[in-house]
Formats: sequence, C-alpha cells, structure tokens
Amino acid sequence: MTTKHTAQRIAQGRGADKADLVLKGGQFLNLVTGDLVASDVAICGDMIVGTYGSYDGVDEVDVSGHVLVPGFIDTHLHVESSLVTPYEFDRCVLRHGVTTAICDPHEIANVLGVDGIRYFLDCAMNMVMDLRVQLSSCVPATHLETAGAAVTASDLQGLMFHSKTLGLAEFMNYPGVLNNDAACLEKLTLFEGRHIDGHAPLLRGQDLNGYLSAGISTDHEATTADEALEKLAKGMHVLIREGSVSKDLHALLPIMTERHSDRIALCTDDRNPLDIAEEGHLDFMIRTAIAHGVPPLVAYRAASLSGARAFRMQDRGLIAPRYRADIAILSNLEHCRVANVIAAGSLVKENDFNKRRMVSAPGRESVQLPRLSIDQLRVKPHGGNQHSVIGVDAGKIITQHLKFDLLQDETGVQGDLSRDVVKVAVIERHGKNGNIGTGFVHGFGLKQGAIASTIGHDSHNLCVIGANDADMIAAALRLSQIEGGFVVVHNGMVLAELALPIAGLMSDQPFEVVRDKLMLLRKAAKGLGCTLPEPFLQVAFLPLPVIPHLKISDMGLVDVDQFRLVSA
Amino acid sequence: MTTKHTAQRIAQGRGADKADLVLKGGQFLNLVTGDLVASDVAICGDMIVGTYGSYDGVDEVDVSGHVLVPGFIDTHLHVESSLVTPYEFDRCVLRHGVTTAICDPHEIANVLGVDGIRYFLDCAMNMVMDLRVQLSSCVPATHLETAGAAVTASDLQGLMFHSKTLGLAEFMNYPGVLNNDAACLEKLTLFEGRHIDGHAPLLRGQDLNGYLSAGISTDHEATTADEALEKLAKGMHVLIREGSVSKDLHALLPIMTERHSDRIALCTDDRNPLDIAEEGHLDFMIRTAIAHGVPPLVAYRAASLSGARAFRMQDRGLIAPRYRADIAILSNLEHCRVANVIAAGSLVKENDFNKRRMVSAPGRESVQLPRLSIDQLRVKPHGGNQHSVIGVDAGKIITQHLKFDLLQDETGVQGDLSRDVVKVAVIERHGKNGNIGTGFVHGFGLKQGAIASTIGHDSHNLCVIGANDADMIAAALRLSQIEGGFVVVHNGMVLAELALPIAGLMSDQPFEVVRDKLMLLRKAAKGLGCTLPEPFLQVAFLPLPVIPHLKISDMGLVDVDQFRLVSA
Repeated sequence: MTTKHTAQRIAQGRGADKADLVLKGGQFLNLVTGDLVASDVAICGDMIVGTYGSYDGVDEVDVSGHVLVPGFIDTHLHVESSLVTPYEFDRCVLRHGVTTAICDPHEIANVLGVDGIRYFLDCAMNMVMDLRVQLSSCVPATHLETAGAAVTASDLQGLMFHSKTLGLAEFMNYPGVLNNDAACLEKLTLFEGRHIDGHAPLLRGQDLNGYLSAGISTDHEATTADEALEKLAKGMHVLIREGSVSKDLHALLPIMTERHSDRIALCTDDRNPLDIAEEGHLDFMIRTAIAHGVPPLVAYRAASLSGARAFRMQDRGLIAPRYRADIAILSNLEHCRVANVIAAGSLVKENDFNKRRMVSAPGRESVQLPRLSIDQLRVKPHGGNQHSVIGVDAGKIITQHLKFDLLQDETGVQGDLSRDVVKVAVIERHGKNGNIGTGFVHGFGLKQGAIASTIGHDSHNLCVIGANDADMIAAALRLSQIEGGFVVVHNGMVLAELALPIAGLMSDQPFEVVRDKLMLLRKAAKGLGCTLPEPFLQVAFLPLPVIPHLKISDMGLVDVDQFRLVSA
Repeated sequence: MTTKHTAQRIAQGRGADKADLVLKGGQFLNLVTGDLVASDVAICGDMIVGTYGSYDGVDEVDVSGHVLVPGFIDTHLHVESSLVTPYEFDRCVLRHGVTTAICDPHEIANVLGVDGIRYFLDCAMNMVMDLRVQLSSCVPATHLETAGAAVTASDLQGLMFHSKTLGLAEFMNYPGVLNNDAACLEKLTLFEGRHIDGHAPLLRGQDLNGYLSAGISTDHEATTADEALEKLAKGMHVLIREGSVSKDLHALLPIMTERHSDRIALCTDDRNPLDIAEEGHLDFMIRTAIAHGVPPLVAYRAASLSGARAFRMQDRGLIAPRYRADIAILSNLEHCRVANVIAAGSLVKENDFNKRRMVSAPGRESVQLPRLSIDQLRVKPHGGNQHSVIGVDAGKIITQHLKFDLLQDETGVQGDLSRDVVKVAVIERHGKNGNIGTGFVHGFGLKQGAIASTIGHDSHNLCVIGANDADMIAAALRLSQIEGGFVVVHNGMVLAELALPIAGLMSDQPFEVVRDKLMLLRKAAKGLGCTLPEPFLQVAFLPLPVIPHLKISDMGLVDVDQFRLVSA
C-alpha cells in the first residue's frame, strides 16, 4: 500500500473520481441491519468503497435483478479432502461463492511434514480466492499411529508470521491438552494470544473448560444442538460442518438463531468434488438452512461476517466501504444461486485461473508399502469370544465400539458376511516400519471384493476393507503402483480407481476428471454390495484415533475413549 | 507465558487442581445466550478458566445474591478530561466496573508532543485497570490553530508496536482525509490493516464512504439515531458517547437493539470527576439505557463484548473460559450497582492502588503567555453590522454560527449582556507566537466577571470569556501563575480555581480534591450569572475547530463548515 492507493480509495469512495468497478442496479443484503438495500456498489482495487448511493465506474457490471451478499468463508477445511490441488480447489469452489477458505494442510503434513505446509502457503500466494493456511498442530495426531512426518513447535514458529497464516489449526489431540502433554503445551504456549482452532468432539463440562483455557476459541466438531449450545455458552465460535462424511447441519439448525448468529460460522471440513458438483459447497449449506426455516440474515451472517469474526479477519464479511470486495452475486437469495463472483475486486472469469503462477507439487512416490502376504492380514485370536468391531454409521465419523461373537480358526478370527462384519487392515505406507493393524468393521454391507485407500486420517496409511484377504492384498498392491488413491477390486481385478499421486492424497488432474472417477468408484463399490453412500470417505476415517469411539491404526485397534490400543 | 502457566490453566479449568480464585454462589449474565446462569466462576492467574460448574479455589469469594458481568470497556476517552493523571483515573473509574479504557492522549500530545504519549504508555504499564493507548493521529488537529507540538507519522511509527497500543486514535481531521492531505494519507497508510478510530460528526453520504475507505472503522460522534444508523449500515462500529459535555445516549437509544448490539459500544470521551462522582461512568450509561427500555443483554453487550470486538481485543468481554478475568460484581443488574470489581483476576482493593509503580509526570510550567493588555482583547470592526457569534447550547459541543447586530466604537466591537453576547479570547500559551484570537459567544448567560481555562481543545491554548476585559486579563494572568487550570474571577478577585499543573491539563492531586474544587468553580460561575451546568467544559470546546459550526482559535474565528478563518 502506498499513500496513492489510500488517496484513490478515498476519492473513489466519495465519488470525486470514477470507481474502478461499479456493480449497478442490484440490491445487497446488509448483514448488520438485515435490510435488502437497492444501491450501487463501488469498488476501488480490492476494496469496496461505496454503498447506499449511485456511482460511475471505469468498468460497470449490470447486476439488476440480483442480490449481492458478502463472499462466503469456509472456516475449516482440508483442501486435500477435495482430492485436488489447491489450484483446482480454487477453480472448483470459488464459483460457489466461497471467496475465502481457511484450510488446515494437516493431511499433507502427516505425509510430508513442513514441506507439505509450505506447498500450501506457496499455492495460497497465487490463487484467485483467498486461501488462508492454519498451521497443522498435531502431526502426528497421536502416538497410536505411524505418520510419514512430524511437525514440531519450532517448525511452526518458522511459519507463524507468513502473510497467509492465521494461527494454529484444529488442536485435535484433546487428550494431550487435558493431560498436559509437553509437545502440546509447547505449541499452545507459542500461539498464546493468536488464533487456536479447536477440535473437541463430545468434550463437555469441566474437561471442555480445561481445553478452552488452553486458549482455544473455535470448534467444528459439535454434532448435537445441546453440545453446540454448551460450546457457544462457553464463549466458543461454533463452526457448523457439512462435509461429505460428517453432516451436522440438520442437527445444529436449532442453534441458528439471530441471537447466536454472530458466533456461528460454516465449514465443510472434508468435502469431495462429487458432492460439490452434485449439491454445492457453502451455497448448499445456506440454501438448506434457509429451506429449514433459518432466517436468511442468520444464514448469510454465518456464511461470511461471523466466520471473519471468529478468525479475526477484520477486513471482510460485509458489503460496506473499507471491506474487501469479495461478493457473491445471487440470482436468488433464498435458494442461494450464485450467478457470478467478485473476488478481491475482480469479476471472476474462467480465464483468471489460467493466469495463476503455478507451484509444482511435492510428494510424488510417497506410497512405500512393506512386502505383503495374506498371512499378514491375520487377526490374532485372543482368550474370549467377544471381539471388538468398529461400527460405522452412514455420514458419521464417530464410530461405535461393537462386540461380536466371531469364529476363530488356525488362520485367525474370521469375519461374518451374514452379519456384515468384514476385515479391515491399516498398512503403514511411509516406508517407516511396515506395521499392519487388522480388525473388523460393521456397517459397509460389503459382500465381495475389497476397497482400499491411501487416504486414512490422519497418518494416511493405506486402509483396506474386504470380503476376502486376496482382494485386500490386490487392492493394496494396485495403490502402490498408481502412487496412491482409491481402488475397488473384485477377484483380483481392478473395477475402478482414482490415482492420487501427490502425497497419496491429491490428484494432479482437473476436478472434473476426479469427479467422474469418483462416480465410477461409488458405482463399483455399490456393485460389491456396499450400502454406504460415501464408502471411500468412511474408509478414510476408520483410522482416525482422535474421533470416538473405536478406530484402527497401523498399530491395531484403538479404543479412543481410553486413548489406547485395544489389547489383543 | 510459559508452558507451566498453560498447564496450570488447563488443570484448574478441568478441576484437577484448585483454582487460584473462585467466585462462588452467584449468577453471571451470559452475553452470548442472554441467560442468567447460576454457576461458580473459576479463575487462574488473570484468566477465567471455569464456568457452568462447581469449583474449589485456593481463594474463594462469596458472591451469592450478586450478578457477575464482564468488566466494562470505555472504548474512547481522553484521560486528560478527567483532569487527573492516569493513576488517579484508574483509582476513580475502576470502582465503576471499567476494567479496560481505550484512551487517546490527544490533549497532552497537543501540548508536549510524543513525550506526552510516552508518559501515558508508561503509566499504562503500571496501572490496575488495563489502559490502552491509541496513538493520537491529528496533532495539531488543524492548520487553523497553534499547538504546543506536532506528532508526525514517523513519531507514531516508533510507538505502534508498543504492547499497550491498539492503533491510530480518532482521525479528527476528516476534511484532511477527504481532501487528500499528505500528512493524513501518510498516517492512514502506515496503519493500514490495523485499527483506525474515526471521528466524523455529521459526515454522511458519499463523503462518509470516502472517509471509511481510508480504513476507518469506528465512530463516536453520531448525535442522532439516523446518523448512527447510517454509520452502522456502512459497517462502522458505533461508540455511543455520554460525556460531561457531549451527551448522545438518549438520542441513540433507538439503535440499541439486539440486532445491532454486536456493533455498538459505549464511551465517555470527556468526563470529569464531578460527573463521575455524581452520576457514575459507564455504569451510569448502562443503568440509564436499561431504565429507558434497552434490554440488559444489549446494554451489557455494548459495555463489554462489543467494545472488545470493535477494537479487536479477542481476550475479553465474556465470562467464559479463556477470557480475561475482568468482572464487575453487581448487587443489582438492572440498576448496574457495582459492589466489587475483579481486574485481571484479582479482587480490587484500595490498597492495590498504593502498590503501583509511579511514573513522574512531564509538562510542568507549560503555560507560557505573551504579555497581556486590554488592548489586545479588542475585536476589530469590519464593514458590516452583522457579526458572527458562536452560539452555545448546553451539553453540546456542536455550536451554531449566529449573526448579531453589535455596536462598534473606538475600542472595537462591543458585546451585549442584555442579549447574552459576551467576549471570548483564545490566547496562545505554548510560548510560540503570542497569538490572540477574539470574538463573541452567546449562550453562557454570564452577567459579570470572567472564567478562563488552559484546557481548550485541541491545541489547549488559554480560552477566556468575560463580561469585561479587565477580568478576562486577570483570569488569564492567574492561570499563568498556577501553571494552568480553571479560574473564576470577579472584579479582579479569584473566586474559585483549580490548578492543573501537568501540561496545563491535569491536576497532581487526588480525584476527590479535584471533584471538590470543581463544585466550587461551578458555584462561582453560577454566581456570575452563568446558566450552563458545565461552563468549563463548554469553554474548553469553544476552540475545537473540527466540530461544526463556528469555533475560535488563537488565530481568530473559524468557520468549520468552510474549514477556514472567518474573514474579519
């Protein structure tokens, strides 16, 4: 910024000079007053400089018949879950009105460490939308898994003043916080006074108080209105999540009132390009909330102004002078139909994406498996007959800790297709130790074949479930060949696959290609009997040992409530 | 902060260790939900760590029968207007529940320059309340007056990262902003992205848009609901002011709704110890608002949470874990009766004020007058008979530009006591040039004698009004002898006075002494016929050339609307 820029803004705002861009003849939704205001909106550079008036512009865009709202802010997401690079995420999501996305590059950090975070920061400097990068706080997430890398407090210190950094990303290791884990304390103390994002599923009462007292102010893990209300009442900003797996919007509709609206924001956390294409992104959340009776003022506040507030971004979230010119131009307010988008003062056109400086992606050939044999998938018998089985529910990342009476023979404990109990294995894939954890899962409905993924939160080891061991091995080996991704195998044959060669997490292809392959994968999984609408996302969350109740890592079954391995 | 502190907070919050202090058995007002909550409040060091539960403390305070609310935040004031040092301000105002005060040391800066600002920053480091010091942006305020010092952008740069600095103080020179004054642009650009406080009386429409586009986000000068609503609708945080002169609370009650409550804060701007003693401080504003029908949730939000938000202080404004333990303990919520105060985690006791490290005050012997004679008070006649006269209304700093037909003789234009037109003079008192500006004022009701002050916003030249020239001279000379202050003179005799030897602005005495002397001064002025309840404050604002419509400086009468001297 120079004084010349300041002078231009002032002169254009007061109408002494023509504005760089004027959106003419429309209405905008004022998120302070709740009014729909008929007014031009004048823009100088990347800043709104005029409302409530008539302006002349060097460029003018006719927005008559449209309603302008502040660009949406996705307050918590992992770009990796869109399965594409930040550049493709930009191209995919900006059209849905999302002009700011606050990401945690936690997935790539678990594979590549601080190099992965740096890649995201580098991308963020060259995108059309404003991508903000929270610094991944828990890599590895726990001591109950083998990650590809570790990120220390001193690694974070080197990145904390980057212009695209907001603060510390979701502090998933809440048991570590509550139990005064030294590495946790070091990171929390380093970020004292700056934003620290929370992650506290089911944490309530005085344990929640302790967690908050570490300086944590936001949470996106509330799954019931009662839990969300406790978090609001204790001063948290609640980020309502509607991802591809975790879908909390309907449960949290009761908290979306005007009284709370200033402390409620929206996020997607993990959302794949298929859902984005079929349903939308934050626009989908907004229209769904409004359809269920949430006042538009509340829904749009949550989508922009309140998210900006929660993350201390003073420069955005309103259509008013001095605010960043991030605007969604809607053909319909209640249905949140985004016709066009203004990002940092420019009307977004497809060609803008071609002008970005490209940063080459790191993390090729990251899938380094041990030698595999069927014998390694054996589930060892133990004394009793009651076996712990992971219970999966469609659309939930919280699992149940089930007990099944399962047969045992000389090849180990056996699954039971008649009761929907199939084998699951997590194979360490970073070339560290070749660990393989095995167990059983209920709820997929799989009748034959296997499905496998190198996305396995948060260490991103290879996770495979299968009706038989041979297909499980075949699926794992195929993922090794294609540098990671998703695969569906039946009788040793690949039915469908998606290569994710960037760290085993992201495609190097346009999002449309990824979307089409995901449709084929869904169809193939369904063909094997799978009853879950999103089998790959649910596979990916089986290893996540910071979400209750029973999970599996390369070290074995994890009792999350006890925060320890289930003894064999 | 060390990791040990973080660990203590967590352990005390979750109830694993006893809290340092527990407020037991009361209720608190939750400013998010609006609920009155029966709960202990646990505190570790300076942080709240537990709510919604029962806690044991090393220290415990019984607050049964009381309601706890977050400590109040005065979002804009000049400590100098309390006529005491920051230390005495602390002792005077903290008992009213004000735990954070955001001051602009604009008055002392106009006398002493950056040394005055540094004195305030030094004091702020040693007080019981949290005093934040905005950096004075417009010193001198205009080119239409002679100040004691100037503060440049490079002076400000040296202070902008001080831990007690929030940003740039009220940008009073709005004509300079709109007209691209180079020094204004330099300061605004320097603080881009940081907080810049506004001051935009009656600024509306596209001129307001231009002003906001300079990066300005707050304003405390709205005097009508309509003006305040425009400022809210354009994204400003509106700071409702109730000072000793400017009293806007009643006019702005209509905007104090729940919808706006998050963007409305409270301030006093200029308030003397007499009013503080007789009415109160922010507690007075709160109880007045509630008495007029403002919901307590809205009033208390404005008094704390929303002020914190407007000034980007993420650490305060709620009674909830991780928030700063600044709490007003009320014996009555609706009447806002403050029984006790917790500041930074400690129950405030009178003796706490004795423990503060004292910083010695600068600015002694700052009143340097020219040689004075009656001839110098002459108001030169000009061609016509219609003379510009400053019209003063009780409790308003905005003045009227009146015209009176006045007699002229060889000693100049004459006042007219029968029509309440008395002489006013502003005498440069910084030893710079000895300028004397003269004119007339209507509205004081003065029948005899003179009253004078070395507080004369913003340059703080000596301002005197009088029914006769001899008493005006006598009053000015007396102020020179006592190093500045207020004085009431009749027939050459001092009837009452208050010495303000620190920069001619502040007393070196306890606030109780100042309060008592102010009562004597009021009484003495009334004895001379003065009909204004606060004559000294109204004298002090006569020279302020950034407030419409007609003012007077050492250079002469100022037409503020034209922003130039009235031609003689």
